[in-house]
Amino acid sequence: MSRVLGIDVGGTKVAVGVSSSDGPEIIERIRLDTGARTLERTLAAARDLDGAPAAVGFSTCGVIRDGRVCLAPNVPGWEGLELPRLLREEYGAIPVAIDNDVKAAAAAELRWGALRGVSAGVYLNLGTGLAAALVVNGQVVSGAHGAAGEIAYLQAIPGEPAFADGHVPLEERVSGAALAARGTALLGRETTAADLLALFATAPAGASDGAPAGADVAGLVDEALALLAMSVANLCVTFDPECLVVGGGMMGAADLIMPRLTAELRRAVPFPPEVRPARFADDAPLLGALALAHAASQTS
Amino acid sequence: MSRVLGIDVGGTKVAVGVSSSDGPEIIERIRLDTGARTLERTLAAARDLDGAPAAVGFSTCGVIRDGRVCLAPNVPGWEGLELPRLLREEYGAIPVAIDNDVKAAAAAELRWGALRGVSAGVYLNLGTGLAAALVVNGQVVSGAHGAAGEIAYLQAIPGEPAFADGHVPLEERVSGAALAARGTALLGRETTAADLLALFATAPAGASDGAPAGADVAGLVDEALALLAMSVANLCVTFDPECLVVGGGMMGAADLIMPRLTAELRRAVPFPPEVRPARFADDAPLLGALALAHAASQTS
Repeated sequence: MSRVLGIDVGGTKVAVGVSSSDGPEIIERIRLDTGARTLERTLAAARDLDGAPAAVGFSTCGVIRDGRVCLAPNVPGWEGLELPRLLREEYGAIPVAIDNDVKAAAAAELRWGALRGVSAGVYLNLGTGLAAALVVNGQVVSGAHGAAGEIAYLQAIPGEPAFADGHVPLEERVSGAALAARGTALLGRETTAADLLALFATAPAGASDGAPAGADVAGLVDEALALLAMSVANLCVTFDPECLVVGGGMMGAADLIMPRLTAELRRAVPFPPEVRPARFADDAPLLGALALAHAASQTS
Repeated sequence: MSRVLGIDVGGTKVAVGVSSSDGPEIIERIRLDTGARTLERTLAAARDLDGAPAAVGFSTCGVIRDGRVCLAPNVPGWEGLELPRLLREEYGAIPVAIDNDVKAAAAAELRWGALRGVSAGVYLNLGTGLAAALVVNGQVVSGAHGAAGEIAYLQAIPGEPAFADGHVPLEERVSGAALAARGTALLGRETTAADLLALFATAPAGASDGAPAGADVAGLVDEALALLAMSVANLCVTFDPECLVVGGGMMGAADLIMPRLTAELRRAVPFPPEVRPARFADDAPLLGALALAHAASQTS
């Protein structure tokens, strides 16, 4: 089995890894911060890794459209980057596969994890951002422009500010970043989504601990979870998966989130899918890049 | 080219048709009302048509799950019917294909109509009921239980009564049946969805003609169209189709509905799909059954 290279460029970090067998093991890895000249620094770092790869998998925030990155405002210089061309220049004739980070994570779950053997499935990423990957016939669905599953752009109220108004409606209400921002505003101190969910878990609605903001925290989290659960139920109504796999950083609060999602799917979906946690957590997009690389090396 | 038989069982009517070439032409047809012993009467009528078919396509309301019809409460005796077994008994060794009526209509659009050549598409049926068919790689997506695209069950408000509560939330708000019921209640006389949409078109919001119910009609229709437009935009956000094809009885008001949908897709979807009217109207599910039959005769 030849070595393959995986690269994941996220909103704040870049991860580069090498895998030598077709499984979720990373034998060598490097981490970088995103920032100025992210791609240049990443490719230079990857050159220092041992041995020439047989294939490269690349997972990135945003989507690739007409050879350029779109919908990726968080990484400086990333939007509009001609990623496919630049990777061809770097890696020449070896197979290079590029996909969105959440679709790549779903590819890792399909190849080695909780989506293995699943024909019709949904992978849901509850992280700083919010996105899904749809699986049909055991393959991740791209959509016509690589944007299938970009549920961050769902609206919850008819006519509310949406994509063309510069908004990302659902993500602004229920993502990790949204909860952190709203929690920080509410409590008057730097608060992460994890902090907020922990506060909610210890003092749920109607059982405020007496702290003045207790009931407000409960209300905020409860409203976000209700909207998330409805949105996920709607996704499952639309798509009729056999299985919903949930991953991403908010799964630190899986004890809170998973029962809520499961109950709502049972209530609102004619054929409720099985709900499973993802196998892979922090490493998911890098493992996804490696899964893309293994797939590319086998089909080339 | 051999003759194939198509059968469509809808909420109130059954249509049986024969096609002899691979195109949307029906050379012989029969219509029946649904009611008692629908399948028995339909199969008897089909026996009277000229010549033995090479294949049979069957489109039905509801979905087929574990060999039985589900989600079809409107046709007496239909829910739970072992349709695949009964059709095998009737037709023996010739290929028989069964699908949901909206998925069948999408198959007709894919084979002969507005979805021809489309890889990633959505077919939206705005009729008495409300449903969609999703197209991936030029094929209609079934879902794990045949229920992909059953958007009638979408919720618009977190926690609102849903499937397990005996409700069909979105269909109760925006389908042809819902508009007719709400219009009838509002105006105090039997009103169809078409009547209501015609009233709205001649007296839109803010331009009431002075009739006491004018503003209420405008409000009712406007609210329904806004919710429909949001739901369709959400479907396109989720699925990223290159093309949205709209059919069904409410397309009598296409002049009202299509610009509204197009504007909302441009506002809310990162990569707005092209919006097209369906090629086939009233005959769509029967043509769908014939498309299924032609496909089955070619793959057998």
